[in-house]
Amino acid sequence: MDLGTGVESGSVTLVGAGPGDPELLTLRAVRALQSADVILFDDLVSRDVLDFARREAKKLLVGKTGFGPSCKQDDINELMVSLAKQGKRVVRLKGGDPLIFGRAAEEIDACKSANIAVEIVPGITAAQGAAANLGLPLTDRHHARRLQYVTGHAKNGKLPEDIDWQSLADPATTTAVYMPTKTLAALVEKAAGQGLDLQTPALAIARATRPDQAVVAGPIGELPKRLAEAALPGPVLILIGQVCSEVSLKADVTLGRDLGQSGRIAAINE
Amino acid sequence: MDLGTGVESGSVTLVGAGPGDPELLTLRAVRALQSADVILFDDLVSRDVLDFARREAKKLLVGKTGFGPSCKQDDINELMVSLAKQGKRVVRLKGGDPLIFGRAAEEIDACKSANIAVEIVPGITAAQGAAANLGLPLTDRHHARRLQYVTGHAKNGKLPEDIDWQSLADPATTTAVYMPTKTLAALVEKAAGQGLDLQTPALAIARATRPDQAVVAGPIGELPKRLAEAALPGPVLILIGQVCSEVSLKADVTLGRDLGQSGRIAAINE
Repeated sequence: MDLGTGVESGSVTLVGAGPGDPELLTLRAVRALQSADVILFDDLVSRDVLDFARREAKKLLVGKTGFGPSCKQDDINELMVSLAKQGKRVVRLKGGDPLIFGRAAEEIDACKSANIAVEIVPGITAAQGAAANLGLPLTDRHHARRLQYVTGHAKNGKLPEDIDWQSLADPATTTAVYMPTKTLAALVEKAAGQGLDLQTPALAIARATRPDQAVVAGPIGELPKRLAEAALPGPVLILIGQVCSEVSLKADVTLGRDLGQSGRIAAINE
Repeated sequence: MDLGTGVESGSVTLVGAGPGDPELLTLRAVRALQSADVILFDDLVSRDVLDFARREAKKLLVGKTGFGPSCKQDDINELMVSLAKQGKRVVRLKGGDPLIFGRAAEEIDACKSANIAVEIVPGITAAQGAAANLGLPLTDRHHARRLQYVTGHAKNGKLPEDIDWQSLADPATTTAVYMPTKTLAALVEKAAGQGLDLQTPALAIARATRPDQAVVAGPIGELPKRLAEAALPGPVLILIGQVCSEVSLKADVTLGRDLGQSGRIAAINE
């Protein structure tokens, strides 16, 4: 779009990079990467995903280890808007889906305040990727008519205060908890206080859908301890619900990976 | 894989077709479609998605209007397994994500019982596609730390009995209800009985992400009536939660579609 200034106006596209396996990108995400001038990406984005970018594109890590010591959201917003104002096609690349625990609201608002066109490309979330990999139905006519995603950490890194713990105690739900490694024990205690059965089957999955995916299984009451012992690498996704008991039956329903026989799932590092 | 019989063994891949826009297919889904001998697809699958199949592939509609008058799940399972046993690469193509309200469990079990290799390719769900299209964050640090998907109909077509209605009354959640057109009024009544504020912003979205996407907005207490009046085409997705109030501010955050100014969202048929 030419605004009459002689400078083509830039744009921002928030793109879901999916859970890790680059084959789980959408076609629209690939096209966005291929036409970007600049890509601002998070720590959690798989490097294989970045390979879809044009060679000429600038790739800037804006995760904690990248853009400045604190990598504040305000700094990312400012950089994103300023690049777009220079006429660049900016892709903001986030793990999973930008609209699910991706802080997209703040970035959309920053663009709109600056009159920058913004578009959103959804992505496969870690729970979807992990479930596909493990052959695990997230809903089930018998065990789970409800699927919920909750976040395991608030702005201060602690367990959020304002989660409806009772909703986690429902025996007919599947719950996915995003990145709760340090808060899992507290979360389980809160949910158990509302009636969550500590024998409910659960899984911890690190690096879901990547070649080095690792899985720890166990009743939710024991998972915090098992997870601490296993010391899985990187952020972890927790799945809780009766459906998790079906994994051992379907451990060979993986994308080319052998998780072994029933009962041998715990702490696999491939 | 050659089992030594001289006949190459077939396989089944459950593939998520996404919400409708073929650009929202994953790369893995496209590859599965391109290498399939037979594709068994549901009513809800967009015909544009089928265009990715090889020209030689057989495409069979196994939805209600296709495979026999009743299209029983058992018939689909039997057809799928029998084709794979003939050595065919079978793709079972389902709208959205096969593991979320897709009855994948029954199909996975049928394959495993018959010793057929099965693989799962996840897909973008309608809630993700609709949210991206509307610029609507499904979670939010202020309004929604929890996102949940529930189904609007049980096996008999009525509202499921065993949903935790209290979890829908939580003011700090975003709820997506899949295909509740006929049961929405009953669902709202149940949730209101547990404390759901009838003024909670909500949206009904038909044909999410397709060129003829249609949206009806309103407080959840009024949405059943407005939805009935609007008579939207096809299955409808309902989003409930404070985040829905942000759509009018972000109505231009769409994938090339103009939803107009704030307050003009109701019952748009483009």
